[in-house]
Amino acid sequence: MDVQEEIRKLIKTIPHFPKEGVQFKDITPLLESPALSRAITVEIARLFQGVNIDAVAGIESRGFLYGLPLATELNVPFIPVRKKGKLPDETVAVKYLLEYGSEELEVHRRSIKKDMNVLIHDDLLATGGTANAAASLVEMLGAKVAGFSFIIELNHLSGKKQLADYDKPIISLVKYD
Amino acid sequence: MDVQEEIRKLIKTIPHFPKEGVQFKDITPLLESPALSRAITVEIARLFQGVNIDAVAGIESRGFLYGLPLATELNVPFIPVRKKGKLPDETVAVKYLLEYGSEELEVHRRSIKKDMNVLIHDDLLATGGTANAAASLVEMLGAKVAGFSFIIELNHLSGKKQLADYDKPIISLVKYD
Repeated sequence: MDVQEEIRKLIKTIPHFPKEGVQFKDITPLLESPALSRAITVEIARLFQGVNIDAVAGIESRGFLYGLPLATELNVPFIPVRKKGKLPDETVAVKYLLEYGSEELEVHRRSIKKDMNVLIHDDLLATGGTANAAASLVEMLGAKVAGFSFIIELNHLSGKKQLADYDKPIISLVKYD
Repeated sequence: MDVQEEIRKLIKTIPHFPKEGVQFKDITPLLESPALSRAITVEIARLFQGVNIDAVAGIESRGFLYGLPLATELNVPFIPVRKKGKLPDETVAVKYLLEYGSEELEVHRRSIKKDMNVLIHDDLLATGGTANAAASLVEMLGAKVAGFSFIIELNHLSGKKQLADYDKPIISLVKYD
């Protein structure tokens, strides 16, 4: 199976969601093919071969979808990065700016150990604000960012630039201009 | 590996979360063991052997975690059931009551086909309100509930009673009184 081609074929573009003018890339059709879901997991793991990864941190909610299978495939822990107030145990939090207003992400303090190499995973790289916030949580706890993995990247939003300072692999399976 | 025993050993009880008096069962330690995550998926699939399942519907957010691996293991589509306003394409919605206020769940209309047998998956069975709402979405679209799968069940909240009318298997890996 050509994973990239299959993803492109299935992704549905929804005009004007969540607001006027945005062309939303809907990944839910991918989830309907178990063979593709398996292939996506294996392909991301393959692309990170040779990179030292001790854990995968997946960002709520859509980063939970392929995040856990990816961690299982890599044989490392999965760490959920959640919106404020959702994680029950002791957390560290980071606030970051969105186009309008701000958002806050949290991670369990106990989940990230000092010097761990943590791969950040989400479904989509847009402006990079969310992935950057997750990466800063990793560093706040004395761990290192191993890289970033996404299913889709929207080139025109230049998310890669925001993550460039980490100087780590940023891999997206499919890119749109 | 004794999956049930391993889950019990790892689940962390967090007192007074999300509010005074609640003993919250934290499943995040399970996610840190890739061997256990794999075993959980295989075990749920095994417990549903002989049940006709055409799709797994996982409830946002924690039902996304083992929901997709379970669908992949069963070789069927995964259908995300999300909070209102998150799914980009045409949806059906259902409102249901919580202890205080109400919540609304949605599913893509195109994801659920007539007469499909859909397994509902979430991490936790408490009062059963959320699982029941997801099941009613399945029926609204002319499909059938194949069963319910949870990692944890809180017996004292009698969630099973609320789901009894479907007369389908309700399976939880670990139960707490």
